[in-house]
Amino acid sequence: MTMYDIIMKKRRGMELSDEEIAFFISGYVSGSIPDYQASALCMAICFQGMSDREIATLTDVMAKSGDMMDLSAFGNLSVDKHSTGGVGDKTSLIVCPIVASLGGKVAKMSGRGLGHTGGTIDKLESVPGLTTSLSDERFLSQAKDIGIVIAGQTKNLAPADKKLYALRDVTATVDSIPLITASIMSKKLAGGAKNLVLDVKTGSGAFMKSYDDALCLARCMVNIGKSCGRNTTAVLTDMDRPLGRAVGNTLEVIEAIEVLQGKRKDDLYEVCITLATEMIILLKNISRSEARTMAEESITDGSAFAKMKEWIAAQGGDIQYIEDTSKFPKASRVIPVISDKDGYISLMNTEAIGSVAVTLGAGRTKIGDEIDYSAGIIIEKKTGDYVKQGDTIAYLYTNYNTESESLTEAYISALCISDTPVAHSKLIYEIIR
Amino acid sequence: MTMYDIIMKKRRGMELSDEEIAFFISGYVSGSIPDYQASALCMAICFQGMSDREIATLTDVMAKSGDMMDLSAFGNLSVDKHSTGGVGDKTSLIVCPIVASLGGKVAKMSGRGLGHTGGTIDKLESVPGLTTSLSDERFLSQAKDIGIVIAGQTKNLAPADKKLYALRDVTATVDSIPLITASIMSKKLAGGAKNLVLDVKTGSGAFMKSYDDALCLARCMVNIGKSCGRNTTAVLTDMDRPLGRAVGNTLEVIEAIEVLQGKRKDDLYEVCITLATEMIILLKNISRSEARTMAEESITDGSAFAKMKEWIAAQGGDIQYIEDTSKFPKASRVIPVISDKDGYISLMNTEAIGSVAVTLGAGRTKIGDEIDYSAGIIIEKKTGDYVKQGDTIAYLYTNYNTESESLTEAYISALCISDTPVAHSKLIYEIIR
Repeated sequence: MTMYDIIMKKRRGMELSDEEIAFFISGYVSGSIPDYQASALCMAICFQGMSDREIATLTDVMAKSGDMMDLSAFGNLSVDKHSTGGVGDKTSLIVCPIVASLGGKVAKMSGRGLGHTGGTIDKLESVPGLTTSLSDERFLSQAKDIGIVIAGQTKNLAPADKKLYALRDVTATVDSIPLITASIMSKKLAGGAKNLVLDVKTGSGAFMKSYDDALCLARCMVNIGKSCGRNTTAVLTDMDRPLGRAVGNTLEVIEAIEVLQGKRKDDLYEVCITLATEMIILLKNISRSEARTMAEESITDGSAFAKMKEWIAAQGGDIQYIEDTSKFPKASRVIPVISDKDGYISLMNTEAIGSVAVTLGAGRTKIGDEIDYSAGIIIEKKTGDYVKQGDTIAYLYTNYNTESESLTEAYISALCISDTPVAHSKLIYEIIR
Repeated sequence: MTMYDIIMKKRRGMELSDEEIAFFISGYVSGSIPDYQASALCMAICFQGMSDREIATLTDVMAKSGDMMDLSAFGNLSVDKHSTGGVGDKTSLIVCPIVASLGGKVAKMSGRGLGHTGGTIDKLESVPGLTTSLSDERFLSQAKDIGIVIAGQTKNLAPADKKLYALRDVTATVDSIPLITASIMSKKLAGGAKNLVLDVKTGSGAFMKSYDDALCLARCMVNIGKSCGRNTTAVLTDMDRPLGRAVGNTLEVIEAIEVLQGKRKDDLYEVCITLATEMIILLKNISRSEARTMAEESITDGSAFAKMKEWIAAQGGDIQYIEDTSKFPKASRVIPVISDKDGYISLMNTEAIGSVAVTLGAGRTKIGDEIDYSAGIIIEKKTGDYVKQGDTIAYLYTNYNTESESLTEAYISALCISDTPVAHSKLIYEIIR
């Protein structure tokens, strides 16, 4: 068996055998297969695709290329969620406490932000004192004791994916549904949860901009999850506008707290309740309406917020900030963005808005960049809203000295304002089980 | 401009600009663009192809990545030939002396054999004393004085192609018509000849096994040659059986001598006369029948053979071997291959026959392998011939101790013998001007 033959086989559109896929991944991880052969194979996969069987095998061998978390002690109660990423997506901070408050065991590894999308680890670390570097023992005992833990990837989970993703990222081979599926699902399999809800986002701020591609990815991931023995549901949600009103780490934590306190019943609330509902269905095997009622009641009766505080405290976070969010450090400059005309916001280029947040200091353009937790955006007007000339449509938070005008212009140029009313697009497109 | 964007653009099927192609080649040669990005782009080109304009630009920038031979002193008389390679292809040894004897200036760089195909340089070096390492001065003065010189690639011709070909060779991206065209034609442009005849082979022993692919490659190369200011003709010839009867270095040199001595009027003779005719047409702008007559007469009147001896002597080769080929060292073992049944040879897997020659010591499986010049095959029966049980269909020449049976079996398994007569396939399929 040679890597040359494997590349040629895929180039010609043939199915790779399980042995060939395993040969590729083990050789690539060990270094015996060089980057230039791996990138050629990835490009051939972009054109020729992979069968469900090939994707399942690729996912499985990538998962097994490193540590496999053992959550079997939690039986059917272990549950994980994954978002394909977006702007203002702080759902993990809300959904995980809801589900933990209802008996789920959320033992989750998460990532940092890069480019226009944020990461849960950065958001958590904006709470003073909180650590996401946890030992195995502490990780598992916290999940057991309080039902929720979110840590950075300290374990060596799916190193094959880490190496392959870094290569795909520089060879224009990222957006291939088989490769994305294997990348996401290998980490989730290695993460060990029995139940998994995937939030697949679509729209201008999503990784999958086209609806059809997102739907295809969602179906593919659910297939693979099930074929690998995990109860898997995907929810296709809108990312054609930022989720909620806050973008940026501290600002998003505060918004998440407000949702858990029952103060907000907006798009963010709805997406979170939907995701939590699907997780509860997998855990308890009850009807959707029952599960939804439980999720909503965990907010109204305060148990989800109590669970959040318990969780933050367990990871060393200072609870005073959670109880009184005015204590969080604020950016030195808050720049209002003023509309220069009347009309309806007909479109938000959500990726561009994410990039504005990076410009303000809220994100990274490359791995290792410093983040300013207090930087970000509070959005006052969203797609469908009517604005008048002179209205404030957003506030930009930053500690940088960048000229205000260039920042507000960048934000405004991400919007279209039209004379005619526009319909609100759907928030939840589809649930795939 | 980034390599990432160039890869993505080609992946999406868009045309690359001249600047993008130049950026890729100069960056790849300098090392600022890594192998893994180059291989991803090559694979994307395999799927999406290139326009004539893109191929012409790629060829041009690859040609200009190194030294450019200046043959302008020869005016319109400089002429080169190129074969896409096959088994038993010793045409350069015959065609070049014919054309030189008629006033052409053949100043040619050639390559070594690899895999199932041989190389002109190896064949030449099987003549005792002959050197193919020539200084620039000697190369040009020999072309001026006697009209023919064939040297190894001592000059730094098209280093971009050298580097890119080595990469394509291990990433299953060799067989792409735009990339093959740019690879061959960049070296030919750098080689400097004003006139060029391409021998594009098709069939089981050729690089291009399918007729349509070979035709497409031939047309593409003629297009590019003309658009780069070279008079270019392609001849599509058969490689569904070995050319001539000898495979292996010394054996092929002896066969070439016999053709030039007028002792053979077979398929090899016909292909050589056709190629020489096309070269003479480009040089002298005369009719095909006139040119063919000149080529044939150069053999009957002995001038072509005299030119061969002059050439071999000029490069240090011992003429005694050319005048009396029985002096050439012979392999210690000559193993007859005996037919085990009656019938017509209906098919010769020519690549497999080339591989048998490699097994005997006549070729290389990897660059740098030693070659046994005396090893090879003399083929007694070819496609269309009737054989009886007990007939000798070939002789295998080797100095290795390999068991005879495994060698003869390998040869026999490359043939099909059928009960019904088979038509001889065409030898010259098409001439593209």
